[in-house]
Amino acid sequence: MVNTGEINGSSNLMDFLDEPIPDVGTYEDFHTIDWLREKSRDTDRHRKITIKSKESVWEFIKGLLDAWSGWVVMLLIGLLAGTLAGVIDLAVDWMTDLKEGICLDGFWYSQEQCCWTSNEATFDDRDKCPQWQKWSELMIEKSEGASAYILNYFLYIMWALTFAFLAVSLVRVFAPYACGSGIPEIKTILSGFIIRGYLGKWTLLIKTVTLVLVVSSGLSLGKEGPSVHVACCCGNLFSSLLSKYSKNEGKRREVLSAAAAVGVSVAFGAPIGGVLFSLEEVSYYFPLKTLWRSFFAALVAAFTLRSINPFGNSRLVLFYVEYHTPWYMAELFPFILLGVFGGLWGTLFIRCNIAWCRRRKTTSLGKYPVLEVIVVTAITAIIAYPNPYTRRSTSELISELFNDCGALESSQLCDYINDINMTRPVDDIPDRPAGPGVYTAMWQLALALVFKIVITIFTFGMKIPSGLFIPSLAYHHHDWIIFRNWCRPGADCVTPGLYAMVGAAACLGGVTRMTVSLVVIMFELTGGLEYIVPLMAAAVTSKWVADAFGKEGIYEAHIHLNGYPFLDVKDEFTHRTLATDVMRPRRGEPPLSVLTQDNMTVEDVETLIKDTDYNGFPVVVSRDSERLIGFAQRRELIIAIKNARQRQDGVVSNSVVYFTEDPPELPANSPHPLKLRRILNLSPFTVTDHTPMETVVDIFRKLGLRQCLVTRSGRLLGIITKKDVLRHMAQMANQDPESIMFN
Amino acid sequence: MVNTGEINGSSNLMDFLDEPIPDVGTYEDFHTIDWLREKSRDTDRHRKITIKSKESVWEFIKGLLDAWSGWVVMLLIGLLAGTLAGVIDLAVDWMTDLKEGICLDGFWYSQEQCCWTSNEATFDDRDKCPQWQKWSELMIEKSEGASAYILNYFLYIMWALTFAFLAVSLVRVFAPYACGSGIPEIKTILSGFIIRGYLGKWTLLIKTVTLVLVVSSGLSLGKEGPSVHVACCCGNLFSSLLSKYSKNEGKRREVLSAAAAVGVSVAFGAPIGGVLFSLEEVSYYFPLKTLWRSFFAALVAAFTLRSINPFGNSRLVLFYVEYHTPWYMAELFPFILLGVFGGLWGTLFIRCNIAWCRRRKTTSLGKYPVLEVIVVTAITAIIAYPNPYTRRSTSELISELFNDCGALESSQLCDYINDINMTRPVDDIPDRPAGPGVYTAMWQLALALVFKIVITIFTFGMKIPSGLFIPSLAYHHHDWIIFRNWCRPGADCVTPGLYAMVGAAACLGGVTRMTVSLVVIMFELTGGLEYIVPLMAAAVTSKWVADAFGKEGIYEAHIHLNGYPFLDVKDEFTHRTLATDVMRPRRGEPPLSVLTQDNMTVEDVETLIKDTDYNGFPVVVSRDSERLIGFAQRRELIIAIKNARQRQDGVVSNSVVYFTEDPPELPANSPHPLKLRRILNLSPFTVTDHTPMETVVDIFRKLGLRQCLVTRSGRLLGIITKKDVLRHMAQMANQDPESIMFN
Repeated sequence: MVNTGEINGSSNLMDFLDEPIPDVGTYEDFHTIDWLREKSRDTDRHRKITIKSKESVWEFIKGLLDAWSGWVVMLLIGLLAGTLAGVIDLAVDWMTDLKEGICLDGFWYSQEQCCWTSNEATFDDRDKCPQWQKWSELMIEKSEGASAYILNYFLYIMWALTFAFLAVSLVRVFAPYACGSGIPEIKTILSGFIIRGYLGKWTLLIKTVTLVLVVSSGLSLGKEGPSVHVACCCGNLFSSLLSKYSKNEGKRREVLSAAAAVGVSVAFGAPIGGVLFSLEEVSYYFPLKTLWRSFFAALVAAFTLRSINPFGNSRLVLFYVEYHTPWYMAELFPFILLGVFGGLWGTLFIRCNIAWCRRRKTTSLGKYPVLEVIVVTAITAIIAYPNPYTRRSTSELISELFNDCGALESSQLCDYINDINMTRPVDDIPDRPAGPGVYTAMWQLALALVFKIVITIFTFGMKIPSGLFIPSLAYHHHDWIIFRNWCRPGADCVTPGLYAMVGAAACLGGVTRMTVSLVVIMFELTGGLEYIVPLMAAAVTSKWVADAFGKEGIYEAHIHLNGYPFLDVKDEFTHRTLATDVMRPRRGEPPLSVLTQDNMTVEDVETLIKDTDYNGFPVVVSRDSERLIGFAQRRELIIAIKNARQRQDGVVSNSVVYFTEDPPELPANSPHPLKLRRILNLSPFTVTDHTPMETVVDIFRKLGLRQCLVTRSGRLLGIITKKDVLRHMAQMANQDPESIMFN
Repeated sequence: MVNTGEINGSSNLMDFLDEPIPDVGTYEDFHTIDWLREKSRDTDRHRKITIKSKESVWEFIKGLLDAWSGWVVMLLIGLLAGTLAGVIDLAVDWMTDLKEGICLDGFWYSQEQCCWTSNEATFDDRDKCPQWQKWSELMIEKSEGASAYILNYFLYIMWALTFAFLAVSLVRVFAPYACGSGIPEIKTILSGFIIRGYLGKWTLLIKTVTLVLVVSSGLSLGKEGPSVHVACCCGNLFSSLLSKYSKNEGKRREVLSAAAAVGVSVAFGAPIGGVLFSLEEVSYYFPLKTLWRSFFAALVAAFTLRSINPFGNSRLVLFYVEYHTPWYMAELFPFILLGVFGGLWGTLFIRCNIAWCRRRKTTSLGKYPVLEVIVVTAITAIIAYPNPYTRRSTSELISELFNDCGALESSQLCDYINDINMTRPVDDIPDRPAGPGVYTAMWQLALALVFKIVITIFTFGMKIPSGLFIPSLAYHHHDWIIFRNWCRPGADCVTPGLYAMVGAAACLGGVTRMTVSLVVIMFELTGGLEYIVPLMAAAVTSKWVADAFGKEGIYEAHIHLNGYPFLDVKDEFTHRTLATDVMRPRRGEPPLSVLTQDNMTVEDVETLIKDTDYNGFPVVVSRDSERLIGFAQRRELIIAIKNARQRQDGVVSNSVVYFTEDPPELPANSPHPLKLRRILNLSPFTVTDHTPMETVVDIFRKLGLRQCLVTRSGRLLGIITKKDVLRHMAQMANQDPESIMFN
C-alpha cells in the first residue's frame, strides 16, 4: 500500500486494467464458488479457442486437443484409480493375513497366494498348506493348544494396534484431511465449496497408505468412502495439469463428479453403480456430458482393476454368487420386512453415530484422537479374534454369507448333517437337518452382528480413513435364519444367500438413503440380475421407513454436524417467507454498503473494504436513485486496487474510481482515475422483494449462485447470500442458524 | 362484453377478485408452461394442506393421503401399463402367427401356445404340431409345392395389408395423435409444452390397438416408442384423477417422466434401464424424488408383466442369453469397430430418414398417408416373405441371433457339419466346419440387413405407431460373420451371439445417442452382466463417431423437423451475444407494450390486448420511469376482465385498472376501479442487458422460464421469450429461425 504519489501521464498505462489481472477469478479458501460465473468464464475460453482454431492448422489441432482433453483426463483418472485400487486390494489382502501368520515361500504372499502357488494344497481345502505358517507354528514348538492360541491372539492384537497407530500418526502428521470417510466433504466440495488441500497430492498418498493400514488392522470400516476420496484426489491431480480445469472451479467439479463415480466403480467393481452413485448421492451439478464421461472413466477404471485381477477370479464382481434360482412371490413379504428392518437400523445408526460424533466434538474426548483410535482398535481386536466371523476381513465374511452352500463348501454354515448316505446328489443339501455346526455358526453370527453394530457406531468418524459400505453390508445375516426352516423337503428351497444380499441392501439403504444406485451396485457386486425386484422392494421400503424418522442420510448428517454450507437438492423448502424477510440489511440495521459508479475515491473504497467483511458490493448509479448497475467482488476489488497502486502510475488515494464505461474528461490537475469496469459483474442476479423464498432457494440451487440482489421497482433494497439462505432454512427447520459456519 | 353500465355500490362485491378466478393458472394449447410458477403454486397448495392438517384428525389423514398419492399414482400406472404391455405382447404373438396359419384347437392360440398344449409335439421341434395348420394346409389339398407356397405368400400379404389398413384408418379417424413414435413429442411435452389430447384416453386406446396391428403386419417397426407413449397416456389418465397433478402442469410432468420409465421398463423388461432412459433421453426436469418414484413404478410394471408372463419363461428378460463365457482383451478391437460401424450407421439413418420425412412434409407425398402405409406394407410383405429371417417377427429374429448354438438348436445358423461321429460333446460345435446351412443363412442375413435398413428409413415417421428400438436391434448380424473364423480348433471360441449383442448396442447408440441407459437396457434385456465392458466400449465409440457427424439423435432431429419449441439440455450455446441483442423490441421497432400500475382504464387494457398478440405484459410504475413492478399474463388479464365485467358490478370501460396494493380514494362519481394485483406476478424474472446469452439460455433451461424481462440500471428495456431464445439459437447455428413454430 505504499507507492503513492508518483504521477505519470503516459496514457498507454492507463488501460493496463484491460489486461487480465492475475488472481482475479479465483476464490478464497472455505468460500463458495459462483457456478454461473464459472460457466460463463469457461464459455469465454471455449469461444476464444474456437475463433483461434480457424486461424491456422496448428491452432486447429490445439483446439481439437482441448476438446478431447476432457476424455484424456477421464482415461488417466480411470487408469490411476484402477491401479491404486488394485494395489490397495493386494496390500490389504497381504496385511490382513500378516496378522495371523506368514508365508515361508516369500513373506510378500498372502495366505491364498501362498497356498495357490503350493502344489500340495488340495482343491477343497486350498487355504491350508504347509508353506503358510501361523505365528505360533513359527515361534514355539507346540503349535496347538492354549499357549499357541494366546500367542496368536496377542500377536493379532499387536499387529492391529501397530497398523492403527501408524495410520493415525501418518494422518495427523502429514495430511489431516485424509481422515474420515471423505464423502460428506466431497459432497460439499462438489456443491461449490472450496477446501484447499482436501484433494491434494499429500492427501492422496497418505489416504492410500492409511486406508490399507486401517482396513488391515481389522477396524470395522469399509473402503468405499476412502476409495471415492482417493479417486477424487486423482481427479484433482489430473485436472490441475490442464488450465481448462485447474483455472475453473466449475469445470474442475465436473471432473471430480466423474472421479467419484470411478471411486465406487473400483471399490465394488460396479461401473454403472458408480455412475449412479455419483448422480444420486454425491454430485451437485451433473449434466449429461459429465454422465457420459463418468461412464467412460468408470469403465476404464473397472477394466484396469480387472487387468490387475486382485481377486484372482478374472471377474469384476467382488462377491460373485453362483445361484440363479428363481424367487417366489411369497418371499416378497420377508424381503419387505428386511427393508423395514434396514430402515430402522439406518435411523438408529445415524442417530447414535451423530450423537457420539457431537460428543467427541464438544467434549474433551476429541483432544485425544490417537488414544481413541488405539483404544477402539484394541477393543475391536480383542473381541474380534475369538469369533471366526469377525476375525477374518469383512469382505471374506460377506462373501461367505452371500454364497449358497455347495458341495465343496467347507464353511460351518453349511454343516448340515449328512445322515442319509452319500449317494444323494449335492442339490439336496437344504433337505438335511441342520448340524451342530449351523447352530454354532448361528450364535457366532448373532454375536458378530451385535458387536459390529456397536463398534461401527464408534468407529465411523474417527480420525482415520473410514468407510461405511462394507460394514453395513455385513449387518444382514441375523434375519434370514428364521426363514431357513421354511423349506419343504425335496422342494426347491429359499436361498439363504439371497436373504443376506437383500438384507445388506436394506441396511445400506437405511443408512445412506440410496435407491437406484444401491440396487445397481448390489447386482453388479453379486451378478444376481434376477433379483432386481427383491432388491428394489427392500431398498424402497428401507428408504420409506428411514425417511419417516428423519430425512437425512448419514452423509448429510455429517455435513450438518460439520456446519458446511451445503444446499441439499433433496430438501424441500415449503415455508411462506419472501425474499424481503431474508435479505440483509434487516429492519433497523445500517443500510447496505454499496459503491457508486463514479463518485468514490480509491480511499473511500479502501475504507469500505476495511470496515466491512462482505464478499462483495453492489454498484449503484448514485446513493439517491439506488439503481443497480453491477456487482464487484471484494477479493477482486482488493487485487485490482493493489495492482493499480503498484503498477499503474498516477493512481493515488484520491483518484476517483469509475465503474462506468467512459470516464468523463477530468481537469488536468486531478489525479489519474481508476477504471474498474473490468472487474464489475454487469449481470448480477436480481430478484424482487416479493419473490417467495422457495423460488429463491430453487434459483440458488439450480444456478449455483453465491449471492443475489433484491430490488423493488428497480431500486436496490438488499442482498441475499448463500449463507443467508442456509441460515434461514435452518431457522425454519427449528435448528440453530449459527451452525452454518463458512461463507 | 355487454353487461356494462349497471352500477352497484355494494362494496362486498368489490373484493370479488380476491377469490380465485376460475381458469387462471392454466395454459393455452401449444404454449409453454412456466416451471417456476407451477412449482411455486404447488408449494402454496402443499403449505395449505400442512396448515390444515394440524386442525383435525380427518385433515391430518387427508394430508397423509395427499403425501402418499404420488406413490399410489405410480402403483396404478405400473399396474395398468404392465397389464397393457402383457396384453399387447400376447396379441402381437397371436396375430403375427395368424398371417401364416391357424390353430385348430382354438383360433385364439398362437403357434407356440397351440403346439405347447399339444401332447404330440416333441421337445426339439416344439413349433410344429398337427394342430397348427398353415392356411394352405387348411384350404387346398396339396399342402406342399408351388401353389401352396403362392397361396401362403398371398394370404401373408393380404393379412399384412388388412392389419396396416385397419391401423392407419383407426389412427386417422379416431386419434391423429396416435401416430409415430411419440418420443419426440413426449420429450417436448416433458420440457414444458402443452399439446392437449396428445396423452388422452382416445390416444391411449387407439395407440394400443394400432400398435398390435402394425407390429403384427410385419412393418419394420418396434414397440418401444409406442410403449412409452402408451405408458405416458396411462400416467396422464391417472394424474387427471387427482387435482394435485391435474391442476399443476409441472407436477403432471413429474408423473409423466416416471411413466416414460415405465414404458421402457415394460417394452424390454428393463426397469433400471427404463429409469435411466427417462433420465438420459426423455425427461427435462428430473429431480431425485422423481427418480425414486420412477424406480418404484418401473418395478411394479415389470413385476406385473412378469406375472402375466407373456414370453412363457417366467423371466423378465426378453432375449435371455444362456452363455456366460468370458471375453478376451483382443476382442475389444472388433467391439470398438462395431461401435464405429454403429455410429456411421446411426448418422446415415438419421440423415436419410429426416430427408425422407422432410420430403413427405413439403411435397404432395404427405397428402396420401393411407396409400403410403399400404404401399410400404405391401413392399415389406412381398420382400419379407421369401427370406425366413425377415418373414418372422423381429423379436424372434433377434432372439435367435443373440443365442449361441446349442445342442437343441434347430436354427440354420447352427448347421455346422457334424462329420465327426456323434460321440463328441456338444461343446465342440465351434470346431466343426460350417455346413451349407450356415452359408445360406449368411446371405439371407445379409439380404435381410440391407432390406431392413432401407425399409426402416421409409417406415419410421409414417402416420402409424412406430418404434425404432427393435428394428435397430436387428441391424447387427452382418458384422460378426467375419470374426467367426477366428476360432482356433478346440479352444474356447468367440461367441457370435455376443457380437450380435454388441453390434445391436452400437447401432442403437448411433441412432439415439444413448450411452448409460442403452448399456443397462442391453444387459437387462439379455442378462449378460459379464459383458458390460464390451457393451460400454461399443456404446461410447458409437456415440463419439456419430457425434462427429452431427450432435442430434433421431428424436431431437424429429423435434426440429416439427418445429417444436424444445430447449435441449445437451446443446451448448457458445456464441458471444448479450441479452440486449436478443430482446424485443429490437432497434427501430415500436416500444415495448407495457401496462402502467395505476393510470390505464379497462378499455386501454382491452385495446392493448386486441392490438397485440403477446403472451403477457410487463407492468411499470409509469411510462416515464419504466421501473418494473410485475408481469401480467395475457390469458389471465382477459379472463379477469371478462369475469369482472360479467360478475362484478360497477366495472365499466372507463374504470381505472390498478395493479397497486391500495388504490387511492376516488371521487364519488368516478366508475368503480378494477383491482388486478391478484393476477400480477410480483416476482418476474429479470436479467440485465449485459447478461451474456449463454447465461440467459442456462437460466431458461434450468429454471424452465417462459419469458424473462431485460433491465438496465433498474429500467425496463425489453423482454426475451423462450421462442426468442430458440430462434436466436437457430440463427446462430445457421438454421432458419422461422422453423421454431409454437409459443
